[in-house]
Amino acid sequence: MVFGDGQAILAGNAMLTLAFDVLLSHGEAGVRALPCLTEAVHQLISGQSDDLAFEGSAAVDLAACLHMEAGKTGALLACSAAIGAAAVRGRDQLVNALWRFGAELGMAFQLVDDILGITGDPVITGKSSSSDVRAGKRSAPVVAALTSGTNAGRRLAALLGDGRPDSEEEVRLATELISEAGGLDWAAREADRRLGAALAALEDASLPSAPLHDLVTLARYVVERDH
Amino acid sequence: MVFGDGQAILAGNAMLTLAFDVLLSHGEAGVRALPCLTEAVHQLISGQSDDLAFEGSAAVDLAACLHMEAGKTGALLACSAAIGAAAVRGRDQLVNALWRFGAELGMAFQLVDDILGITGDPVITGKSSSSDVRAGKRSAPVVAALTSGTNAGRRLAALLGDGRPDSEEEVRLATELISEAGGLDWAAREADRRLGAALAALEDASLPSAPLHDLVTLARYVVERDH
Repeated sequence: MVFGDGQAILAGNAMLTLAFDVLLSHGEAGVRALPCLTEAVHQLISGQSDDLAFEGSAAVDLAACLHMEAGKTGALLACSAAIGAAAVRGRDQLVNALWRFGAELGMAFQLVDDILGITGDPVITGKSSSSDVRAGKRSAPVVAALTSGTNAGRRLAALLGDGRPDSEEEVRLATELISEAGGLDWAAREADRRLGAALAALEDASLPSAPLHDLVTLARYVVERDH
Repeated sequence: MVFGDGQAILAGNAMLTLAFDVLLSHGEAGVRALPCLTEAVHQLISGQSDDLAFEGSAAVDLAACLHMEAGKTGALLACSAAIGAAAVRGRDQLVNALWRFGAELGMAFQLVDDILGITGDPVITGKSSSSDVRAGKRSAPVVAALTSGTNAGRRLAALLGDGRPDSEEEVRLATELISEAGGLDWAAREADRRLGAALAALEDASLPSAPLHDLVTLARYVVERDH
């Protein structure tokens, strides 16, 4: 904001390149880790590109929305979970299992984030209540509500149109309709399902009990957090 | 332009990351080449950042201007010249000599480009005559003229102020003043000096006669071209 868009874009490019430098400075281990990073960057870019393409589009379906979130959040946690094992020449089965663990956990994280963006307590989250609803964001619970085939979903579609609620009264009504159409329940169930898939992937990793316990604790926290 | 700034930025990030993937797909040779690429990217970013910071700044001196051009063009040709030798485990002396060759040649290339942007024949360059003058660009010949301490340089500074010429008549006058203040002569001499430095670096590389001949021919073409 202070230095302008151009300098901000350059700073982003510099930090991306520095991430490669950091890995290169760690010899063979860093080189083995590099493909994890480039794969994650490509998926992040793809997800962000989808997100931009969806802006102002009323016809986003749930599959497209989840694919976008898999790129934007799933890939980041997948890379974070797998890159250490890749660096120390872990077996393919271990690296792949940790990648799937992170990818599924990232989806669970994002779905919980989406719910908190609609229902979260502003004192705890630091965002205003219904902040995503106010911004007209088509997060997964909103898309689930819009495509639910329910009366509430149709009323929500009519209310939002291609844009965002026009007043605080409309924000409150939209938040109620997302809930009534089942969008929040769907997202909570999907987050639980993704957590289950993440924990199943951990079993395939055949980890010793101490790191297994830490990762399970981390995974459960991600889904149960309120901020 | 067609898909908007956001998608364009993402496409740039994707291509940068793909460049690393391309090198990674070539095993050890690619890994040895990677530091050349990251170093060039950092210098490019630094030069572009300087260029943005200089926009609308009347007080850019010649050293800052040349440092900016070293980043924006020198690093690109330095990387291009040295990366092959780095990939095949060339001696440090060879890689460093080729890097200096490309860096100096890049400066010569940019200085000739700056001259053509002021005096180039629009039929040959494909740009309008005086295109850089019309855009108010503070390229090296313009900065040399502005800081020449000549009467023409002071008249040029008064004419341009912090901006660009207001009319075609002012574009013609500014072009004449850049020449009269010695900006074009300075840039031509500096381009020749850089070409000399590039050719001296090639001698340090101790190349066989066939590639030496090709690189000398290429270097001379860069400075003698008219488009």
